[in-house]
Amino acid sequence: MLMTGKDKALKIVNKAEIVMLGTVDKAGQPQIKALIKTKNDGLKEFWFCSNTSSKRAQQMKENGKSCLYFTTKKWEGVMLNGFAELSYDDEVRKSFWDDSMLTYYPQGALDPDFVLIKFTATSGNYYKALVNEDFDVAD
Amino acid sequence: MLMTGKDKALKIVNKAEIVMLGTVDKAGQPQIKALIKTKNDGLKEFWFCSNTSSKRAQQMKENGKSCLYFTTKKWEGVMLNGFAELSYDDEVRKSFWDDSMLTYYPQGALDPDFVLIKFTATSGNYYKALVNEDFDVAD
Repeated sequence: MLMTGKDKALKIVNKAEIVMLGTVDKAGQPQIKALIKTKNDGLKEFWFCSNTSSKRAQQMKENGKSCLYFTTKKWEGVMLNGFAELSYDDEVRKSFWDDSMLTYYPQGALDPDFVLIKFTATSGNYYKALVNEDFDVAD
Repeated sequence: MLMTGKDKALKIVNKAEIVMLGTVDKAGQPQIKALIKTKNDGLKEFWFCSNTSSKRAQQMKENGKSCLYFTTKKWEGVMLNGFAELSYDDEVRKSFWDDSMLTYYPQGALDPDFVLIKFTATSGNYYKALVNEDFDVAD
């Protein structure tokens, strides 16, 4: 069976440990930050840990337009376009919790500074060398 | 001598082989692309190879606001904020040329599809774990 760009993208995304989050600040300037990939539902939904007090979280409240970018060492990559929002879902925060995180969130899993970034993708692009394929992200 | 965030940033930037370029498309959506680092003048000026026909190059003509992002394996990174523009400088294109690039630019160093991205930084940020330091990029 021939793998589509979307199939290859899913493989890269599922294997990835680190992902780059792109956002846009008040001045219209793009910003990038590396995040640890935690939970994802295929190419559609991603959750990341962040800090309420961080510049990035504050910025996201005003402008949720964002992208995720994944690369491999083989000059191959995936970009997902979508929307990011902050979430304080207690169940999800507890499910992500591990005591090594106390350095960052001294009050534990429900520390008010512990916020989740929920990213929802709408479309994507897979590339490898000169191959470049756009795809929709839908059910 | 104590190293400042800016000193540490310069060290990371000079060692880097790959850099992430962040731009903003017409719809205000952030976009990320991995590029091979070629030539740089400290933290101030960077040159990259691209294609005139690419989405990214076309987009850059309309909105030059951009950032560069560098990470190490030690959870440490640098972001530079600035402006990107396209350049067809013949001398610089010739200086970057190498015959392995014929796959991408069949007409050689002066192929009209061979365009340079010139990025000029204005400010930067260095981070490592909880350390986070902003700096200006000036002479």
